[in-house]
Amino acid sequence: MDTINGSDHPKHWKFEGNKDLDAAAISVRGVLNMLWQNLSPNDERPTIVLGCGDPTQFPSYRTNPASVEAVADALLSFEFNSYPPTVGVPQARRAIAKYLSNDLISSYKLSEDDVYLTVGCTQAIDVTISVLARPGANILLPRPGYPQYAARAAQEKLEVRHFDLVPEKGWEVDLDSVEALADNNTAAIVIVNPSNPCGSVYKYQHLKKIAETARRLGILVIADEVYGHLVLGSNPFVPMAEFASLVPVLTLGSISKRWIVPGWRLGWLVTNDPNGILKKTGIVESIKNCLDITCDPATFIQGAVPQILEKSNEEFFSNIRNIMREAAEILYERLKAIPGLTCPQKPEGSMVVMVKLNLQLLEDIVDDVDFCLKLAREESVIFLPGVAVGLKNWIRITFAAELSSLDDALGRLRAFCKRHAKKP
Amino acid sequence: MDTINGSDHPKHWKFEGNKDLDAAAISVRGVLNMLWQNLSPNDERPTIVLGCGDPTQFPSYRTNPASVEAVADALLSFEFNSYPPTVGVPQARRAIAKYLSNDLISSYKLSEDDVYLTVGCTQAIDVTISVLARPGANILLPRPGYPQYAARAAQEKLEVRHFDLVPEKGWEVDLDSVEALADNNTAAIVIVNPSNPCGSVYKYQHLKKIAETARRLGILVIADEVYGHLVLGSNPFVPMAEFASLVPVLTLGSISKRWIVPGWRLGWLVTNDPNGILKKTGIVESIKNCLDITCDPATFIQGAVPQILEKSNEEFFSNIRNIMREAAEILYERLKAIPGLTCPQKPEGSMVVMVKLNLQLLEDIVDDVDFCLKLAREESVIFLPGVAVGLKNWIRITFAAELSSLDDALGRLRAFCKRHAKKP
Repeated sequence: MDTINGSDHPKHWKFEGNKDLDAAAISVRGVLNMLWQNLSPNDERPTIVLGCGDPTQFPSYRTNPASVEAVADALLSFEFNSYPPTVGVPQARRAIAKYLSNDLISSYKLSEDDVYLTVGCTQAIDVTISVLARPGANILLPRPGYPQYAARAAQEKLEVRHFDLVPEKGWEVDLDSVEALADNNTAAIVIVNPSNPCGSVYKYQHLKKIAETARRLGILVIADEVYGHLVLGSNPFVPMAEFASLVPVLTLGSISKRWIVPGWRLGWLVTNDPNGILKKTGIVESIKNCLDITCDPATFIQGAVPQILEKSNEEFFSNIRNIMREAAEILYERLKAIPGLTCPQKPEGSMVVMVKLNLQLLEDIVDDVDFCLKLAREESVIFLPGVAVGLKNWIRITFAAELSSLDDALGRLRAFCKRHAKKP
Repeated sequence: MDTINGSDHPKHWKFEGNKDLDAAAISVRGVLNMLWQNLSPNDERPTIVLGCGDPTQFPSYRTNPASVEAVADALLSFEFNSYPPTVGVPQARRAIAKYLSNDLISSYKLSEDDVYLTVGCTQAIDVTISVLARPGANILLPRPGYPQYAARAAQEKLEVRHFDLVPEKGWEVDLDSVEALADNNTAAIVIVNPSNPCGSVYKYQHLKKIAETARRLGILVIADEVYGHLVLGSNPFVPMAEFASLVPVLTLGSISKRWIVPGWRLGWLVTNDPNGILKKTGIVESIKNCLDITCDPATFIQGAVPQILEKSNEEFFSNIRNIMREAAEILYERLKAIPGLTCPQKPEGSMVVMVKLNLQLLEDIVDDVDFCLKLAREESVIFLPGVAVGLKNWIRITFAAELSSLDDALGRLRAFCKRHAKKP
């Protein structure tokens, strides 16, 4: 019996936290918080965080003044203080339809009705999962992959099945495992390109094969292109929408990464549906219904979208890509000389890359979480343990960083690995 | 067999929209869209929308320049472009804790750890429902009430039970019906004060009785105070947190209404928990886990919160309240002379009020939806049908409007009701 405030206090409160929710909450940010708490207070060196796709902490990764001005203009106009339409403000939808259509070499063009504005790409994922969740249904997710999909699917009771990405083949999708996993209850396959967490960029032919496989299986393709256009190698960025005549595609994107403004929380969910299949199957209706009862991106940020897309020049984008290309090069070369680590492929896009731990060459390191915890404590460097993206005993390194910080972090990583290397 | 693009096209696509989601989607905005589509294209008069709690369309309801400057400052600082912490940026949490503590006459004060930033009050509702949803649990909602709670509960499979608000008693909670509805699986009761949709403001003693009832039942109080401080009559605004020593309280709020910036999407979820019950029962942990996997308000808007709260002066707030008080007066007086309508109580707060339709005095009007559809078509005036807030054959009128527009709308409403009045 609780004694606070007299005798009528209930023996048992009847509410409790949602355990399902607790179990679902494997998030990049949750894991990073844990590492953050493991930092040594005695290390006077700056902590270097290369654990998430957010390089805004580094001076070289600054968004362009044109985009900031666009938001300031929309704000100061007092024209965008109302609730937005649940699907997004029309001029933003129109601008994004045009922006995405410009990337397509096929004759297919998007209309503003295909575009739904979301609170970052995160909400685009949330809506997608909610729309597909129904009793018995399952969804195919890449392994390794971005954990938000699985976390939300767990919350919505949508069964998850993982297909493999093959490191030896540039992290291409193992299409045989896709065919083997799919059954009559499979609703969709998720493709993240450019890849988080692999740093790969898929060729046209591979994307086409994925689309053909999905078509054969009768499943939807969810194309997470939040890192769209952030490509550094010889493979150009090919939007999955290129194959929308073969199979309906839901494209998820955002200004977060290309414009380096993840904090602005402006993303989109786009239906690429030239054959009207998403309408016929009720997906479009469910998207609208879901948006009717969820939250929206700030109206004035939506209002700024046309100007952001129009006034951002190629120089800004290519400057960012050039720094990232140099960073990817440095990371890949320097990793070769660090004992116990293998990077199977030089990063070709996104902001991150997967690196394998060869634990038999390291002593006192149990697994990837242990590696990252000890690295945080001993060297004040934060990487993401691979288990957070579904690949145990790998780590994910963000290379979108100031070159000097990356250099510093790699020096500390090398010292750490040498110190923990098994003696011959 | 679909014939597009050759013979390997699947007979049946295996995905479909989420029917549960479709059923859940009874939203204010959905109903208003329907009315909007029923407007007559031939009416040359301006459409007057008094259907939602968003008066930003009216020149008198403009946010203060200090708040716009605060957001512009945060944006132009380039300091708030990163992902925010999932719980919110610390300086905003601190400022809101102080802001809400200032309202409390009890000795209880909030700390920044009690405050979670959300994408408007909408996401605060979403998180609350997700946290409380577990198999078999139920939640007590007011009737009439804001439909977002029931819509989200349907999506999360949380059972809803409605208790009545009594129009003859200033829309007070019928506490007997609360006691009768609650059982061992009841997790919480939702109280919206100042009330949407009733326009009432509860007295200290009534709020205390609600808290005592919840304590006796062992259930949590969810206090939706999104209209906090928007009070026009003699009853002051009393935060439910005043009674947090009796029963744990989750307070939901936002800058949307008081600052007239619903489009900024900045809200909060606050734990008022002096006895540590929300920690002990896992509610706090679940809130954090839920926020780890959902979206956030834009970081720079969060960054502006301290300045918004500090620099907004009483003159701005009292100007708005004065216009609203005059509007409430005009509405209440003019309604008395309109046949077929009864407003049981002059609005004392929020931006909306409930008005009863006396259908036996009207001809050709089947119900509240029919009334609103015909009013939209014939008079280009939009009100919300009561059924959207759980009370059939009532309507909800927003009085937070330009006085000239309100006057115009009431004139059209009067003409409409006279035209549709039963002939003696």
